Amino acid sequence: MRIVMYNDYRVGVIQGENVCDITTLVPGWSPEWPQNFMVRFIAQFEAIRPRIEAYLPDAPTLPLAKAKLLAPVQYPTKILAAPVNYRAHQQEMGQVYKGQTLNTIAEYGVFLKPPSSLVGPGAEVVIPFPDRRTDHEGELALVIGRTAKNVKREEALQYVFGYMCAMDMTVRGGEDRTWRKGFDTFTPIGPWIVTADEIPDPDHLDLKLWVNEELRQNSNTSYLIYDVARIIELASTHQTLYPGDIISTGTPEGVGPIRPGDRVRCYVEKVGELEVRVVSS
Amino acid sequence: MRIVMYNDYRVGVIQGENVCDITTLVPGWSPEWPQNFMVRFIAQFEAIRPRIEAYLPDAPTLPLAKAKLLAPVQYPTKILAAPVNYRAHQQEMGQVYKGQTLNTIAEYGVFLKPPSSLVGPGAEVVIPFPDRRTDHEGELALVIGRTAKNVKREEALQYVFGYMCAMDMTVRGGEDRTWRKGFDTFTPIGPWIVTADEIPDPDHLDLKLWVNEELRQNSNTSYLIYDVARIIELASTHQTLYPGDIISTGTPEGVGPIRPGDRVRCYVEKVGELEVRVVSS
Repeated sequence: MRIVMYNDYRVGVIQGENVCDITTLVPGWSPEWPQNFMVRFIAQFEAIRPRIEAYLPDAPTLPLAKAKLLAPVQYPTKILAAPVNYRAHQQEMGQVYKGQTLNTIAEYGVFLKPPSSLVGPGAEVVIPFPDRRTDHEGELALVIGRTAKNVKREEALQYVFGYMCAMDMTVRGGEDRTWRKGFDTFTPIGPWIVTADEIPDPDHLDLKLWVNEELRQNSNTSYLIYDVARIIELASTHQTLYPGDIISTGTPEGVGPIRPGDRVRCYVEKVGELEVRVVSS
Repeated sequence: MRIVMYNDYRVGVIQGENVCDITTLVPGWSPEWPQNFMVRFIAQFEAIRPRIEAYLPDAPTLPLAKAKLLAPVQYPTKILAAPVNYRAHQQEMGQVYKGQTLNTIAEYGVFLKPPSSLVGPGAEVVIPFPDRRTDHEGELALVIGRTAKNVKREEALQYVFGYMCAMDMTVRGGEDRTWRKGFDTFTPIGPWIVTADEIPDPDHLDLKLWVNEELRQNSNTSYLIYDVARIIELASTHQTLYPGDIISTGTPEGVGPIRPGDRVRCYVEKVGELEVRVVSS
């Protein structure tokens, strides 16, 4: 199932070229306080799913092309992200940071991004400091579906609600990475959440990113240093993951600068494509 | 006004030795979904305040000693914290990290902690890795009251809802600091929120921390490298702060290890005292 949030925080399911409006099935739905209901919906999804499936044939629909898609998760309790998690990206970063060998996820653990940085498909990504290098990092992201703590990798995929494309926009420099990666609009996600049942093996997905028509990143999640299950194991070590929490799994080689006017498009196999535009602040 | 959360997520105001129960005045209050209403209450506080004041004389009360206090903010959209923000702490950290000079907030910006790490007064702080050094860091924390972005320091204090004691528990080592500081129970806050009208000058407050009966930290917020207003200016640079968001302002010198069995007590002048117990995992 592909789940979208659209227009004034309505919730829908993609069916072919249409969005089926399932908002009436979302407990506590309210457009005034969007930080609440989507996380709650994800937490309760398995219980609601049979009702959604029964409702879909009669649901009101809207052509997908006419829906304004939003970030499919609003205000998760946290967003975790992997630092260097592809070897070839580790090598290219050695050049950006003048011969330093950057540590990988194995040495660094995971880091946080703020929910205030989330935007959805078609959003404007705002460059905060025009004189500094700002890079795209295309990634596979997952959404947690059940409360998780000290999860073993063998069971980790059972805690995944679904998958999305994500971009981890990054100002290069010496500040704490959570600051350099945390500005508003710096975490585009979407275009929807593909529920985990449709992607039983997240570790063999093509991942590509274009800036305008130029293919900049072209890899596969099989090159992840820590695969999806192991990232969840690490992220949940002595730290509780809640439904709706997002984990972005790290970016492959090919990262590079973005500039106002650019269109950036990220593709993940079996998930879809997420495109944003870059603007000046 | 000193605002507490207690028992099953009820909301109260301290009056002398009692807690006045104002839960009925909290819009959307629900003990099942505590991540929602406290942030919303803070956002709407100024509008509700006259009703609270009128209600207090007749409010149901409970002796403070009988209330189980909780973290006074639950699930803020983010927690920001200052890295080295006292010169004397910068010097002592140079010894912990073998002669390296640690950068201060001026070079590092601010970093994130996860809401899942919050606990309240009397909580157990769980040591995740018994063989690694885990330190206490006593701090003054503030709670944001109004949506804030690109705020100038001259106006920054107008965005503060109130103040709390905080501890930024920290495993020492080479991983990303958001991982080393983000484990469950690693961000005790409280014992209540003192509203900003009672602390017009947050930059001249004594701050002390004891482990058992030993005074470990003893400073004053006048030694902050970036004062409270300037931290808000930095934190809100191209990043939206929402009501309920927490900013912890950094710790003075005197940080040191904590061990299972320790009682750790943090005092901030005009705010109060926050005590926690340390246990093994």
